[in-house]
Amino acid sequence: MKVGFIGFGEVASTLSVGLMENGAEVYTCIDGRSTRTRNNILQTGVETYPTYKELAENSDILISSVVPSKAIEVAEMVGKYSKGIYVDINNVSPKTVVDTLDKIENGKTVDAAIIGSVFKNGVNVNVIASGSFANEFADLKNYGMNITVVGSVNGQASGIKLLRSSYTKGVSALLFESIYHGYKMGIDKEVLKYISETECPDFIESAKSRIISAAFHAHRRSEEMDEIVEMLSGKQDPVMAKGILDFFKILGENIKKPEKRPTDYNEIFEYLMKIKE
Amino acid sequence: MKVGFIGFGEVASTLSVGLMENGAEVYTCIDGRSTRTRNNILQTGVETYPTYKELAENSDILISSVVPSKAIEVAEMVGKYSKGIYVDINNVSPKTVVDTLDKIENGKTVDAAIIGSVFKNGVNVNVIASGSFANEFADLKNYGMNITVVGSVNGQASGIKLLRSSYTKGVSALLFESIYHGYKMGIDKEVLKYISETECPDFIESAKSRIISAAFHAHRRSEEMDEIVEMLSGKQDPVMAKGILDFFKILGENIKKPEKRPTDYNEIFEYLMKIKE
Repeated sequence: MKVGFIGFGEVASTLSVGLMENGAEVYTCIDGRSTRTRNNILQTGVETYPTYKELAENSDILISSVVPSKAIEVAEMVGKYSKGIYVDINNVSPKTVVDTLDKIENGKTVDAAIIGSVFKNGVNVNVIASGSFANEFADLKNYGMNITVVGSVNGQASGIKLLRSSYTKGVSALLFESIYHGYKMGIDKEVLKYISETECPDFIESAKSRIISAAFHAHRRSEEMDEIVEMLSGKQDPVMAKGILDFFKILGENIKKPEKRPTDYNEIFEYLMKIKE
Repeated sequence: MKVGFIGFGEVASTLSVGLMENGAEVYTCIDGRSTRTRNNILQTGVETYPTYKELAENSDILISSVVPSKAIEVAEMVGKYSKGIYVDINNVSPKTVVDTLDKIENGKTVDAAIIGSVFKNGVNVNVIASGSFANEFADLKNYGMNITVVGSVNGQASGIKLLRSSYTKGVSALLFESIYHGYKMGIDKEVLKYISETECPDFIESAKSRIISAAFHAHRRSEEMDEIVEMLSGKQDPVMAKGILDFFKILGENIKKPEKRPTDYNEIFEYLMKIKE
């Protein structure tokens, strides 16, 4: 099994190492890459092709793992050369993934999405896949990957990821707003306690962590919510998603990302109370 | 121990029965009451005073349990007669409860809030209390009630209840929006499944029930959110609470409350999809 990667960041390098350990041959292309990326590739032991054309022609499964804004561009570049199955694993909206995969002329395409952290889970990270060749992509389970086919249509896997992400970001925003207000009234611990009575046993610890993450990653989350609001904006007005977007936008503007992740939400709340005086 | 009730709806009648079973003497006033309420009072076996003045003068603990819009009015009416401890257990904002309790001239006041359902839990329902006489009110634990003192300042108990309520309503709105959009894409079950992986074991069942309740009680929830948005509107803009308010307002306008609670969210989603065509 020959697996090719377009792009070689954290996702590609982590998956590559795991796939090779499980007997797959892994390739990428070094054309136009920075010295840092070339060194990264050399370290993992992945084989290279001099051109993307050759990479695309020789891969059984070709996985695009680039920055979201480049997803369509790279599909266009290799669209007429891809002989095997083309997999877009980038963090993009269902509409973008459909437009991207439309560039692949042989039509053997898969929409894939990573659920959870590659950093924490390695090659075993949860990957969901949809599209006409999702079952064939899922053969990589024989090479250490953890793939679940969720449908046969491009856009479904990305849609699941984005809707899940909208929900979890929303919960963080709700927690932040309620507990911050409670903090100002001196009742934050009690609000957490009484919410926890209808939640999971570890709710309070996880809520505190979510509040801190909300502030620490506010800017990035507002960018991700932009994509989600665009996806949801159709006949119905996605009022909750828009609220989450506004929430993270305002929080990101108010709070400068500290160098170190705060260990307690008090630090964040005190800072916000000071600048709002 | 003589406990008086102003107002005699579900909360007062349920607590009265439980308090009497545990040895308390319970009183109310029938002045100006409807025949239905008088019959209700007779059935429970609660004693009555002909005037609110006498009720207020003779109660060790006087509990106001009226419709939220009447909370201040009844406090004004008995403010100079209340000899014991005056407890406002109405579903009002911290600001309203402070204004209400300011009418009680002897200053022996308690802000109390019911967490959960009186219908389901009876006299044992979770009651939280704050205010200068919260500890004395908590003596009713000896008569079957389940009271937790959460602070010494009026407004804290009501604040906890409202912030908790804002969070739980928000979660329902988030679920509804994400799963409804997933339903339209044919991936609602998968979105629930992948959200559930980082949630409690019974998440999927409880999420479905929350989605149905969101539609069934949309109008009432939008009214409750009005109160919460007003409470949170200060220096910070409560964008999430406003989103929740808008969400339930729009849902309540779009969906006519059916006579029976739907058993499946499909019914609700199909109805919404039809009217939006």
